Amino acid sequence: MHDTYVHRYDASESTRLRDQAGTLEDLLHGDTCFPAGSEVLEAGCGVGAQTVALARRSPDARITCVDIAASSLREAEARALAAGLDGVRFHRADLCALPFAEASFDHAFVCFVLEHLPRPDLALAELRRVLRPGGSLTVIEGDHESALFHPDDDAARAAIRCLMDLQRATGGDACIGRRLYPLLREADLRDVSVSPRLVYVDASRPALVEGFIRRTFIAMIAGVKTAAIMAGLTDAPTFDAGIRALHRTTATDGVFCYTFFKAVGRRT
Amino acid sequence: MHDTYVHRYDASESTRLRDQAGTLEDLLHGDTCFPAGSEVLEAGCGVGAQTVALARRSPDARITCVDIAASSLREAEARALAAGLDGVRFHRADLCALPFAEASFDHAFVCFVLEHLPRPDLALAELRRVLRPGGSLTVIEGDHESALFHPDDDAARAAIRCLMDLQRATGGDACIGRRLYPLLREADLRDVSVSPRLVYVDASRPALVEGFIRRTFIAMIAGVKTAAIMAGLTDAPTFDAGIRALHRTTATDGVFCYTFFKAVGRRT
Repeated sequence: MHDTYVHRYDASESTRLRDQAGTLEDLLHGDTCFPAGSEVLEAGCGVGAQTVALARRSPDARITCVDIAASSLREAEARALAAGLDGVRFHRADLCALPFAEASFDHAFVCFVLEHLPRPDLALAELRRVLRPGGSLTVIEGDHESALFHPDDDAARAAIRCLMDLQRATGGDACIGRRLYPLLREADLRDVSVSPRLVYVDASRPALVEGFIRRTFIAMIAGVKTAAIMAGLTDAPTFDAGIRALHRTTATDGVFCYTFFKAVGRRT
Repeated sequence: MHDTYVHRYDASESTRLRDQAGTLEDLLHGDTCFPAGSEVLEAGCGVGAQTVALARRSPDARITCVDIAASSLREAEARALAAGLDGVRFHRADLCALPFAEASFDHAFVCFVLEHLPRPDLALAELRRVLRPGGSLTVIEGDHESALFHPDDDAARAAIRCLMDLQRATGGDACIGRRLYPLLREADLRDVSVSPRLVYVDASRPALVEGFIRRTFIAMIAGVKTAAIMAGLTDAPTFDAGIRALHRTTATDGVFCYTFFKAVGRRT
């Protein structure tokens, strides 16, 4: 999965992931708090965009983060230290072959990770394996087809489709959010509960216009321009027209919606 | 607008609208309560599917309902009486030419109405006219492109598209939900606040599988089959395949999402 990550491993991508985490933190993580002393695994922590939010909400949990990319892990560790979180442990590991014994963790957490995996079922089986009976798994994913905007625009849709197609070409699924319920059930997790988190943005919410539409969503789509052109999915003028149309939704009469899905299941 | 209503004026349609109102009542209306003694206009009440919910939550408001269709009004009145709501008044009237003086009402309410109008802006101007300064307007609309489901299916999307195309052909917009913010702002309403209401359904929510996916959404799409075929938008086998694919989302591994938009604005 390291070589096929559709978003780029560079500084602007790290900035985007951090901005996204800041804007969406309450919406996505506000109801996640792991008990004091519990062993928590964050699998696929990347640059640590979610790690600080996770650790701040569970200050006395024992958090272990793994990712397959060493460069991301170093950045995640630096971020955690900068935030004063010196108790978080970082290990390089493949999510589908975790270096932990069965039932090592009370809780596991994955955010924006399954969307990139050719076999999310194998990752879920592995996460279930390292959970103790009764332990919980929390998964958060987006679904790019949930993007609704006004003014609607074909070029904007086509630009979003480029990202979805690139992700599919590497075995991922940018629309995995809606599938969390069956994925967790098929992984033999029980009491699966899914709650969608809809981000709604209009001109009355300027922080979200900037933090979500521009710095999160458009930045994410714009980030695949070169890859999309190289893959023959678009050309520069067409793609740029799509990005302009997405920016048009940030005007005073524009609207933008996107839905994340959060699922929690339990190992019996 | 009477002749162009995309849903049919018949018994099964009335049943669908009542089922929809029952399942969605808390989600859509739970936060709407008009004060005792206030004058409230429900514009476009149809068969009264929302009227009972509205009146029950505002038991001491003085509610006036108007609709352009006499047969719908009779059914709405009968429903209100059956529910013990003998204080609700019913008048036949065109939403774009209301038979009320300026500033007649403290609050106005429209639900699943603007989507059918060629000129929602004129209706909003008229509703604003009959509101007293400081009075509120509440609007609830759907957005059919917000329908997300698993398994995804092209025939299902095409069947939904038939309804959207029929509605567009009569001047309506089945995706008007996302536009409520600019529509209310352009109608010179102030303090406009839009809150999306996402209905999420999977097998862990059997009441919504039946009440929303089957009896509300699929029933609504299935209801335009003849019209869609007659308009040359589809043929029976193709349309039926779409309906079957929508039913497939009610299986134990299926998921269905739909977003309603609720907007409240104020006349200054």
